[in-house]
Amino acid sequence: MGDGTTGPGRPRDPDLTPRVLAAALDVYARTGWAAFTLDAVARQARVGKAALYRRWPTKDHLLFDAIEAHTQPLVATDTGSLHGDTRALASALLEHFLYPAGWVTLRIEVDASTEPATFARFHEKIVAMHRDGAERMVQRAIDRGELPSGIHTRSFTEALYGAVLMHALSMTQDQREQARHEVAEHVTPIVDFVLAASMTRAALPD
Amino acid sequence: MGDGTTGPGRPRDPDLTPRVLAAALDVYARTGWAAFTLDAVARQARVGKAALYRRWPTKDHLLFDAIEAHTQPLVATDTGSLHGDTRALASALLEHFLYPAGWVTLRIEVDASTEPATFARFHEKIVAMHRDGAERMVQRAIDRGELPSGIHTRSFTEALYGAVLMHALSMTQDQREQARHEVAEHVTPIVDFVLAASMTRAALPD
Repeated sequence: MGDGTTGPGRPRDPDLTPRVLAAALDVYARTGWAAFTLDAVARQARVGKAALYRRWPTKDHLLFDAIEAHTQPLVATDTGSLHGDTRALASALLEHFLYPAGWVTLRIEVDASTEPATFARFHEKIVAMHRDGAERMVQRAIDRGELPSGIHTRSFTEALYGAVLMHALSMTQDQREQARHEVAEHVTPIVDFVLAASMTRAALPD
Repeated sequence: MGDGTTGPGRPRDPDLTPRVLAAALDVYARTGWAAFTLDAVARQARVGKAALYRRWPTKDHLLFDAIEAHTQPLVATDTGSLHGDTRALASALLEHFLYPAGWVTLRIEVDASTEPATFARFHEKIVAMHRDGAERMVQRAIDRGELPSGIHTRSFTEALYGAVLMHALSMTQDQREQARHEVAEHVTPIVDFVLAASMTRAALPD
């Protein structure tokens, strides 16, 4: 079952792939696309360059595998109420942006603006994942009778996701570390503000 | 009036500084901090490396000057009403994010998360600029009697800025180019949604 990384007299390294993918994500999180190189990943993962190049011929291949392996969908939990669902989603999002992993998503979006061809499929995947989760949450609220069936989901989603992102962006690094222990307190005013709008006529299309 | 870039028998180059700063901003916008080098800027500006290094000994100095020279404050215009002010601010913000210049702001925020020491002062300046503009806008609305004096400015600002940013982020490059001609149509649902929340009790602190 040779995989190209073993050879006569050479011990197999079964955790090479996860180690390389974790290192790739870490290098990308710190540097972005322009400075992302197979050499930098090989150094960080303590893997020979030849093994890396055999498996991932270009940096595109490697970054794609790394992102696929480490991206966890933000699940929009069904808590039984719109208020509970919105709090749960806002808390998960804020937690995401209080840790380095959250910045990978933002790096992808920034790099997608200058390297659209390379990043288009990640951009689409991220957007679709968030849109689908929010739409399911709004649909559950409509089914429960909490929201009118014509509600303008896009404004609701943009305001909720955007306010959480802006809240995290406007903090310093120290404030982000502190906020990891106070996620509930941080999301409360955002959730209340966005839910208040969703209960008014403005949430309905003209 | 020698500035270190002229010498005997050598013609002065009066537009060297603006050319270098424009090139620096362009290189940074495309690559981010990790791949930003004085050499790349010298190539793009068609300037000798020696002249560049004499004036800007490190890449920190050069990027700081470039950002200072090209950052325009987002003015929160006084249009006479909260609705008009909010539309004007949302339109200016969306325009910002539909052109490459807007992505420099986002790159700075992403780089600030991994290079806090280098980027702290830009982060603080961006946050303060936006917070001050939004606070002046809300204060004008309070003075006009359009909003109650205890309104929770932070949630309003985060939802407005965040929704506009999220709206721009969720577009493809083609959609962004198209949207440059339809800014008013794009901001209308966002402005209506955020203003609706600001008129409810949720905008007031507990």
